[in-house]
Amino acid sequence: MKTTVGIGLLGAGIVGGSLVERLVAEREMIRLKTGLDLEVRRVAVRDVTRDRGFELPEGVLTDNPMAVVGDPTVDLVVEVMGGIDPTSDLVLAALQAGKPVVSANKALIAARGPELIAAAETSRVPFLFEAAVGGGIPIIRPLSETLAGEQVERVIGIINGTTNYILTQMADEGMAFADALSAAQELGYAEADPTADVSGADAAAKAGILGSLAFGTWVGIDSVFCEGIEGLATEDLDFAADLGFVVKLIGIAERVAGGVSVRVHPAMLPVDHPLSAIRGATNAIFIEGPSVGELLFSGPGAGGAPTATAVLGDVIDAAREILASAQVAPRIRFSPGELVSFDEIGTKWYMRLEVVDEPGVLAQIADSFGKADVSIKSVWQEGKGSGATLLIVTHRAPERRQHAALDSLAGLEVVRNIAAVVRVVSDED
Amino acid sequence: MKTTVGIGLLGAGIVGGSLVERLVAEREMIRLKTGLDLEVRRVAVRDVTRDRGFELPEGVLTDNPMAVVGDPTVDLVVEVMGGIDPTSDLVLAALQAGKPVVSANKALIAARGPELIAAAETSRVPFLFEAAVGGGIPIIRPLSETLAGEQVERVIGIINGTTNYILTQMADEGMAFADALSAAQELGYAEADPTADVSGADAAAKAGILGSLAFGTWVGIDSVFCEGIEGLATEDLDFAADLGFVVKLIGIAERVAGGVSVRVHPAMLPVDHPLSAIRGATNAIFIEGPSVGELLFSGPGAGGAPTATAVLGDVIDAAREILASAQVAPRIRFSPGELVSFDEIGTKWYMRLEVVDEPGVLAQIADSFGKADVSIKSVWQEGKGSGATLLIVTHRAPERRQHAALDSLAGLEVVRNIAAVVRVVSDED
Repeated sequence: MKTTVGIGLLGAGIVGGSLVERLVAEREMIRLKTGLDLEVRRVAVRDVTRDRGFELPEGVLTDNPMAVVGDPTVDLVVEVMGGIDPTSDLVLAALQAGKPVVSANKALIAARGPELIAAAETSRVPFLFEAAVGGGIPIIRPLSETLAGEQVERVIGIINGTTNYILTQMADEGMAFADALSAAQELGYAEADPTADVSGADAAAKAGILGSLAFGTWVGIDSVFCEGIEGLATEDLDFAADLGFVVKLIGIAERVAGGVSVRVHPAMLPVDHPLSAIRGATNAIFIEGPSVGELLFSGPGAGGAPTATAVLGDVIDAAREILASAQVAPRIRFSPGELVSFDEIGTKWYMRLEVVDEPGVLAQIADSFGKADVSIKSVWQEGKGSGATLLIVTHRAPERRQHAALDSLAGLEVVRNIAAVVRVVSDED
Repeated sequence: MKTTVGIGLLGAGIVGGSLVERLVAEREMIRLKTGLDLEVRRVAVRDVTRDRGFELPEGVLTDNPMAVVGDPTVDLVVEVMGGIDPTSDLVLAALQAGKPVVSANKALIAARGPELIAAAETSRVPFLFEAAVGGGIPIIRPLSETLAGEQVERVIGIINGTTNYILTQMADEGMAFADALSAAQELGYAEADPTADVSGADAAAKAGILGSLAFGTWVGIDSVFCEGIEGLATEDLDFAADLGFVVKLIGIAERVAGGVSVRVHPAMLPVDHPLSAIRGATNAIFIEGPSVGELLFSGPGAGGAPTATAVLGDVIDAAREILASAQVAPRIRFSPGELVSFDEIGTKWYMRLEVVDEPGVLAQIADSFGKADVSIKSVWQEGKGSGATLLIVTHRAPERRQHAALDSLAGLEVVRNIAAVVRVVSDED
């Protein structure tokens, strides 16, 4: 039986470079452990003259990615170049040519997942993307394989390390958002343009993928409600601590009445929630199901080496399958399902209101909530010179009713400013 | 393409019964999510007349397990009967007949793993056992597949829920071991004969399996050093807390100089270690590797429903593979490796000594450690009437030198009693 598999890489940046080094340095260890001989045969890079710190035989590097896909000695394609176009066309071409593809590209999968998965199914080759969510944390395979027979109820996770690092700095060191972001950039946790991380878009792509695998219904990124952390004030993290909460940017995918909901937003979590202890750039994913109970996975959510480990695991898995058979059955199928609008989801809100400090103010505010049919759980007043600050936590009500209350409050003359809104995620109503 | 797979079960107890219920009730959900139609065709039980709470067609139940293995309508065999004999022969017969086997039986795999894995490889069918370690926690597949390309350095876990429940009760409620064991039995966390759990044998079987998969070298249960929790006194858990430690029964599989070491024993862990927060019957497994960093998996380590979820995931995986191809490549290969004796492993010891309270005692004790070349990290004296109690924590030294110090101490007249020895597991020397 053939045991050598020719590997082609699209990209050799932080993840790809780490992967090439491992494939070269650990070839014998991998052969012993798996029986597979993985040989790097073609690597597409932007600049073939740059020194990358690893040696490859003459002719392996190319600046033409389609040459990797089309190389007859390449049996399996690893996509670590990122982006959606032209990456999508390259991946599609590889799959249509009957070559398995391993990708670490959450943006690509969130945008083009169904099309690429369908192409893999048609060609009956594996299309694996363990590294697309949670970096080095095994989560795609456990969710789509080990838990394939579980009626998963909820997946909730800290799936962006940059924002978790920033929030940890804000909470622990009292730093302002902008300063914590600068610190993250200096340490390499955040990119020069941090928009994808701080806006929640990166987490939304991952949450959509997790929801799709958990529920077997495709959840495109456009269906994921997304709010970032740019608007968070350090004082709200302090108030959260006083109230027994920790603020995290979370992705939630859950089964709700009428269908499935996937969303990303900052949330106040009870201090004893398993995700509250997750600090710095670490990621963690919490899965709840009626049979399996509660599972928690945590580890490094990004970085070249951990992500390359996840890619390498997929490469070994795909190589094993294609050597055994020319025909691989798909691991996951999607069937149509209802996606419930975030407006209909029950949420609880923490609000910080700056109000005029005079009698009757609270009555007016309570009336705004009452008319919107939102019930107040607790109110604290923080005295502050001529005005006052009210911290309000509501009971659970559909998101659209919370917004109706917000609109009503905004129209009150006694409300000077709605300074903050953060959703509270806890089991109680 | 054929999509229906006939399932045969050996056993329908707590795990098997839960699995049958799920296969019947969730058949359509599984078909939608995976494209596989799983049909329960034969189930071997001890007593076919007993009411099990689920309905199966006439003739499905049998009291002859070999009839399940030999049934031509059974494409895949699930072994949830437990035990080593005659289970081993039944599993072997199924594999030799070219039928994939899914097993939840850690004792069987620890005892006969290489033989069964070899039989599966010869027949080129899957032999999967996700449920054998960690109940519902996905750990076998992540370790053997996602991390196949990682040079794992260490796996350390709380892999027995019964003992973790007992130790949590002892630490939190101040209960004696015997009382905590009774409480665990009343709640169904411990069996009437709790020997396999409290002696560490159950954890040793699991630790051997984890070590084998992590390092690609088979570690039989006879090579696993094993010490249980029967001898632990509640006061040592209290002293541990004073010293900043939590006592847990842990399994450790690690790469050491000269080879691999796998061991199970009670250990004092620093209170901020990720495993220290794991309470009650929960299991957790911590994996360290040079590229992937630190991964933590936690969840329910036992129980019918969580374990059945893991079995069901394997059934779906194996069914998918056999439908795609008559020839399945093995997922893991073992190559020869050195197992290092526990005597040579560097350990740190906590000791509680009851000594005569007179001048010069500490000098004699220090001399015993010095002659054995074990260095003392700290000593506390707890006054106690005519005698005194010394709590000693050593620096790291090979286990055999710690034993030499112990023997020397036992020969001192000023040492009335060596009341306790618990190893300390922390990163410092």
